[in-house]
Amino acid sequence: MLLGLRGKLNPKNNVVNNNSNQGKENGTAFNDVTMSATRNQHFNGKSRRKGNSDTDDELLDMMPLTNQTTSFYQDDSEDDPLLGDRSFQVRPTQTPKSASPSSHLIQSLDDSIAGMEDYGTYDDFHTIDWLREMSRNRLRHRQITHRKKESWHLKLRALHDAWSGWLVVLLVGLSAGTCAGIIDIVTKWLSDVKLGVCPEKFWLNKESCCWNSETVTPSGSNCTKWLAWSDVFGMSAQNAQGVYAVNYVMYIVVAVILATFAGLLVKVFAPYACGSGIPEVKTILSGFIIRGYLGKWTLLIKSLAAPLSVAANLSLGKEGPLVHIAACCGNIFSYLFPKYGKNEAKKREVLSAAAAAGVSVAFGAPVGGVLFSLEEVSYYFPMKTLWRSFFCALTAAFVLRSMNPYGNSHLVMFYVKYNKPWFLFELVPFALVGVLGGLYGAAFIHANLRWCKFRSTSKLGKYPILEVLVLTIITAAASYPNPFTKVDASAMIAELVQECTPVSKLTDPNLCDYEELPVNQTYSVSHGHQLAPVGEGLRTAIWQLAVALIFKAVITVFTFGVKLPTGLFIPSMGVGAIMGRLIGIGMEQLVYAYPDCVLWASSCSTNTIRESCVTPGLYAMVGAAAALGGVTRMTVSLVVIMFELTGGLQYIVPLMAAAMFSKWAGDAFGNEGIYDGHIRLNGYPFLDNKEEFTHTTLATDVMMPRRGDPPLKVVLQENMTVGDLEHLVKTTTYNGFPVITSQDSYRLLGYIYRRDLMVALENARHHSENVLSNSKAYFTLHAPTLSTSGVNEPAPVRLFNVVDLSPITVTDHTPMEIVVEIFTKLGIRQALVTHNGRLLGIITKKDVLRHIARLNKQDPDSIMFN
Amino acid sequence: MLLGLRGKLNPKNNVVNNNSNQGKENGTAFNDVTMSATRNQHFNGKSRRKGNSDTDDELLDMMPLTNQTTSFYQDDSEDDPLLGDRSFQVRPTQTPKSASPSSHLIQSLDDSIAGMEDYGTYDDFHTIDWLREMSRNRLRHRQITHRKKESWHLKLRALHDAWSGWLVVLLVGLSAGTCAGIIDIVTKWLSDVKLGVCPEKFWLNKESCCWNSETVTPSGSNCTKWLAWSDVFGMSAQNAQGVYAVNYVMYIVVAVILATFAGLLVKVFAPYACGSGIPEVKTILSGFIIRGYLGKWTLLIKSLAAPLSVAANLSLGKEGPLVHIAACCGNIFSYLFPKYGKNEAKKREVLSAAAAAGVSVAFGAPVGGVLFSLEEVSYYFPMKTLWRSFFCALTAAFVLRSMNPYGNSHLVMFYVKYNKPWFLFELVPFALVGVLGGLYGAAFIHANLRWCKFRSTSKLGKYPILEVLVLTIITAAASYPNPFTKVDASAMIAELVQECTPVSKLTDPNLCDYEELPVNQTYSVSHGHQLAPVGEGLRTAIWQLAVALIFKAVITVFTFGVKLPTGLFIPSMGVGAIMGRLIGIGMEQLVYAYPDCVLWASSCSTNTIRESCVTPGLYAMVGAAAALGGVTRMTVSLVVIMFELTGGLQYIVPLMAAAMFSKWAGDAFGNEGIYDGHIRLNGYPFLDNKEEFTHTTLATDVMMPRRGDPPLKVVLQENMTVGDLEHLVKTTTYNGFPVITSQDSYRLLGYIYRRDLMVALENARHHSENVLSNSKAYFTLHAPTLSTSGVNEPAPVRLFNVVDLSPITVTDHTPMEIVVEIFTKLGIRQALVTHNGRLLGIITKKDVLRHIARLNKQDPDSIMFN
Repeated sequence: MLLGLRGKLNPKNNVVNNNSNQGKENGTAFNDVTMSATRNQHFNGKSRRKGNSDTDDELLDMMPLTNQTTSFYQDDSEDDPLLGDRSFQVRPTQTPKSASPSSHLIQSLDDSIAGMEDYGTYDDFHTIDWLREMSRNRLRHRQITHRKKESWHLKLRALHDAWSGWLVVLLVGLSAGTCAGIIDIVTKWLSDVKLGVCPEKFWLNKESCCWNSETVTPSGSNCTKWLAWSDVFGMSAQNAQGVYAVNYVMYIVVAVILATFAGLLVKVFAPYACGSGIPEVKTILSGFIIRGYLGKWTLLIKSLAAPLSVAANLSLGKEGPLVHIAACCGNIFSYLFPKYGKNEAKKREVLSAAAAAGVSVAFGAPVGGVLFSLEEVSYYFPMKTLWRSFFCALTAAFVLRSMNPYGNSHLVMFYVKYNKPWFLFELVPFALVGVLGGLYGAAFIHANLRWCKFRSTSKLGKYPILEVLVLTIITAAASYPNPFTKVDASAMIAELVQECTPVSKLTDPNLCDYEELPVNQTYSVSHGHQLAPVGEGLRTAIWQLAVALIFKAVITVFTFGVKLPTGLFIPSMGVGAIMGRLIGIGMEQLVYAYPDCVLWASSCSTNTIRESCVTPGLYAMVGAAAALGGVTRMTVSLVVIMFELTGGLQYIVPLMAAAMFSKWAGDAFGNEGIYDGHIRLNGYPFLDNKEEFTHTTLATDVMMPRRGDPPLKVVLQENMTVGDLEHLVKTTTYNGFPVITSQDSYRLLGYIYRRDLMVALENARHHSENVLSNSKAYFTLHAPTLSTSGVNEPAPVRLFNVVDLSPITVTDHTPMEIVVEIFTKLGIRQALVTHNGRLLGIITKKDVLRHIARLNKQDPDSIMFN
Repeated sequence: MLLGLRGKLNPKNNVVNNNSNQGKENGTAFNDVTMSATRNQHFNGKSRRKGNSDTDDELLDMMPLTNQTTSFYQDDSEDDPLLGDRSFQVRPTQTPKSASPSSHLIQSLDDSIAGMEDYGTYDDFHTIDWLREMSRNRLRHRQITHRKKESWHLKLRALHDAWSGWLVVLLVGLSAGTCAGIIDIVTKWLSDVKLGVCPEKFWLNKESCCWNSETVTPSGSNCTKWLAWSDVFGMSAQNAQGVYAVNYVMYIVVAVILATFAGLLVKVFAPYACGSGIPEVKTILSGFIIRGYLGKWTLLIKSLAAPLSVAANLSLGKEGPLVHIAACCGNIFSYLFPKYGKNEAKKREVLSAAAAAGVSVAFGAPVGGVLFSLEEVSYYFPMKTLWRSFFCALTAAFVLRSMNPYGNSHLVMFYVKYNKPWFLFELVPFALVGVLGGLYGAAFIHANLRWCKFRSTSKLGKYPILEVLVLTIITAAASYPNPFTKVDASAMIAELVQECTPVSKLTDPNLCDYEELPVNQTYSVSHGHQLAPVGEGLRTAIWQLAVALIFKAVITVFTFGVKLPTGLFIPSMGVGAIMGRLIGIGMEQLVYAYPDCVLWASSCSTNTIRESCVTPGLYAMVGAAAALGGVTRMTVSLVVIMFELTGGLQYIVPLMAAAMFSKWAGDAFGNEGIYDGHIRLNGYPFLDNKEEFTHTTLATDVMMPRRGDPPLKVVLQENMTVGDLEHLVKTTTYNGFPVITSQDSYRLLGYIYRRDLMVALENARHHSENVLSNSKAYFTLHAPTLSTSGVNEPAPVRLFNVVDLSPITVTDHTPMEIVVEIFTKLGIRQALVTHNGRLLGIITKKDVLRHIARLNKQDPDSIMFN
């Protein structure tokens, strides 16, 4: 889906804009211009002269002399209660306002501007400016806290504002937990429908159907209330072949129906609901705008399609989609609170918390969820967000536990508790498992990215439903005969990570079928099983596992990326668990065959009964971690999630070892995880803040205009007319223009945003009929000397207020490593390049990304965005 | 101790410099100048002209015309293999080097400079420049990776370099774990010495002494091998009063000996070993240099003094000091690897990992340790560091577990497992516990800071040993009669957090002494105790607990800050645990008294036996979290540490609730935790990256020079002589000087560091005898036209190479909130302030800190550093 989405995400492509079903959110429309205006109001007119000034630097020095300037301040300080704060700042006093000639000037943006609500701050597929957004938020916060003394109503508002941060994450946690609970229950029911029905109460799954009737055995054979499809069709149990065939066919048919329904839902109602969503959520959190990606339609359709897809037994999970679903909850609830809904940077704090809640409910691992959000998904993650994310994740987990979808008191998907410790010599096989997991991950990433590229460039991408159909038929047909693939992947993992004890209850009795050795001692059932050679049943299970391993490893490559909600956690863990279990069994047999090897002779008990000192279930757990680590390149969060699954610190060292070796092995064949790979493949403008820029280029190599390009489009402080500016805006698509003092000196005054300029000009035209195309535009603090006689002259317009006087600048000699650090850490959208105080050019985030792509020998034009 | 340290830390004070015992590390001496030189070598001579240039901008444009320039490049590119990398950069070719008149110029720093090793990069009590350090590291890394193809030796070096990051954290983890294990064992032994001795093997503690002889009962009365002091002196057991008196006196005497010895050790050998060390480690991690603070002497003395102080039964813990000790290990081992030892920024990555290991071993909580390091201690914490910190923390915990100091297989200090769940209605008392904990924390911080301030300003600070002595006598005398304070605080907490079961084994049988109700049903021992009224024993225990609460709460205020290693975790948790247990008992009685209250009627079982549904032990655990949260204002890490202690996700919600309410209640009375308080009190230059700057000042309000100050000291691109420069360096103490193009234009060319300038001048004098005081100094790329005739003229010196051409600049209109963000996020030391391309002034980190202090109505001159 991801490469397919690319066409959709491309702003030049009309698909998105024409699609009325994609649940577009309202544009985040707010008065952005007032911010830069207010910021400028803080300018307090102090000037420090060093030596002699150039002519174009006299501007500030003129201030105390001109009435205009002081009246300008007076005007604003009346509106701005905050200026009273600044006790140690000098401000001009005694200002006769009325006589000021500045009234001749059209001062745009002094009043609130009508129609500004129509302008969202950012367009779709644009990058946000974190620094600007955070400034806006601080301004808003200051205004609220300052005005709270005025009335109890405003006090209440300030209180609400202070609490809204906690309230919104509480709501997100509650809703994410509820969604996850419902999805879990629905998935369970739908999965069982492939095998049969509960005729009395069709909405019950097998377990619930058989509840209270008899003891539920794992095979369910004793339960008469639940009917397999062959029973429904009245087949005789004697006709074993017929029963098998009917159940086989029904298995495939139901799977196809479920998958097709899911595919249609996604295709018709919410194209954004496909995929795992994590690459996109990651991109959005890094400051990109994809409208509707976290909308209510996406939430609804993904919540419906995820259980359908999982129940269709495709090699995909619902854990990744749960992160996307939780992020949708985060986005939707943030619109209830203007503090978050109307500020893209603050909204991303909620989304980070939501992502944590998503993983928290996916695995029942709140701490792991927070670390996942911190490590893998989030971009800016201040401590405040960490704490709230934790709260959010915990709330979600608590709600889920209260709903108790797994039917046990444990929160987690597969809770395990081993009787035996691990021994130091086992670190060698654990490391081996880690390396294999890493290699699998690297191979998977490579193959999947190639397949996704092929899908997007070939005709295949045009028939998503057909692709789903074929894939479902193949998967279902191949899965049914194998007991390990017939069931849910999560059920399979839960079985593989169990240890074999004399009383171990497994769905598949083969897995613990060791040869029985003579028992001549009292043997406690609490102990592990005896060290014994592989029995007949286990030999069969090993073959089945090997087949399942190959099948799952291959089919997942083709599955991740189809137009369905496709999570990758469970399939990866499944492959790893099979691999780990196989190695674990092998290790066990090795210990049995060579009991006196120096490595384990001292560790394994040497009494006659020879209790097995190798737990293949632990190897499966370690393998699951290794494969997941290889695919996603998670580190800390992976270990913590797995540690929360095993519920004990005891096994954290093996998990850590596996995760480390997996990452090292994987990184040897390419540094990027599957999510980063898909981000690159889809050309999202993601500037990785975790990767170091290691090249030696300078800002001058990256900035625009390049050698031979037309000169930079700039705005002059004076000497430009309204017509010039309007022409500039019309003929270019830049997001903003540097303002310079004069063509001669090219000294940088500030930066004006395209949107601000457009609004200001429109506003000026709207305010006065005297503003014509040949009206002079001034970006200066002082007013020009006006000939008071010529009333019919075109009125000059002062646009100083809309200039951002604090653009981030770098010198042309700045190494790109520092420029990249400034971009990632400050989250800016553009930086101006100067040389000895002269403006040379501009570097945008896009330029940086293209530069990095070029250095990495990738196609720099693949990055699509503004 | 902290305020006392202040005098020591003040560079103007000679105490530190004269103190030969403080274990000064070797200055981190490395060739810093070469970096800026190499950075400039990357300058590739491209120039983009916009419009007409001013005269002083012609510099770059002249380049292709002059032979000098090209030869300059040629010179450098031969030395710099990296330039070959930059495929899409244009460089001048064909350069006749020999004929170049540039040979007349003294080009400083082209060769390696003798004597540079004597110059450390940073002086003691100075702030590091993160951006510069990271650049230096990247340069070093590039050089190593580039040269690795040359020989197998260099390849090996590159490999070693790549692995050293893991190696160093492995070593740190191993050493921190070992230290913690030894400290734990020594503490246990010393604590028991207060009560008696093991005559056969005096080095054994009570538990080990009685091992294998009899079953060890909690009271130890059955153990004949262990002799109480009264037994040693041959007192008859009949003389109960005499026995008590002798033991009482010996308890005090031993405590005083231990404490005095610890105090002398600290005073004589390592003054930096006092306190918890966390405020200082936090300051160091934020980029401050305190030489010797993490040295081997500090490590040794703190490792010795911490067990002594704890064993003296003072109200302090060894958990905070363990963080300091681990940080010392980190510092010492980082010197084994030049990558870390010689780079202050990289070294701090190791220190962050070490801090995580410290908490990990203190509580047996590796995940909590990492989060503590992330949340509380560290400043820059990239993902790579997170992963390595986790590894480090895990290694340390694993080593500690292998040493098994607690004598159980659990890693943690007090492992608890409750039989009963908690109920929703209990969130109300949990929140109450949280609020009380927060209030206690706020009161403690306030009182302790006042006392520390008093100590440092009064005569008390001059008699640290006497203070320790008096404190020990008071503490020991007051502690002995109370069974809860007589034992170690950690032992007390371990007891308080236990639940009462029919088989519960507690040192103090009173704590579970409820009245016995008639039992008329089979009562499983695995269940909790019956809901019953308070018995006689428990009534005594409640009184003792109440007294202990008040005593501990008061004495800790006076203890934290004495000249001993004083941790705060355990005392705070102790106070909280007592409070929580009392509230828990109260809650239990409330449920007993009003069994039909709607709140709990449904939750608590209503059968006749009425099993208690309130676990006072859990309340103690929650109380410990609340008090610790109130004192330190930790959030996520607190909950995770406590959750790792309780070993189950089940109780994470109560802990979270307590932590939240504790933080809210505490923050209502002041936002800073105890560590931040001590940082402020000691005037450390800590620019908090977690706190938002909320004021509306501009860069122009903060920059130097202020109105009326003498003008900024600058260096001119041309027209300055070597004598001028030497005079400038001699007469000022600034860390660097802006370089401007001319006095007229004040256009900023770059920034030159004082140290670089000094070295370059010295070097130039050293290289040629023709360099005299009236030699001209050029900071330009092109050489001046030289009259080739005058050989005896003073030789001009070109210093262009030592100019940092990429200083961070902000405009004078930049809001301070953005300036603060730039300072914290980029970790810079100074920013230059410009207006329309003209240099106006400079803002240093000190200016920012002073500005914030002034805005917060604190004394801006309390901040001492450079």
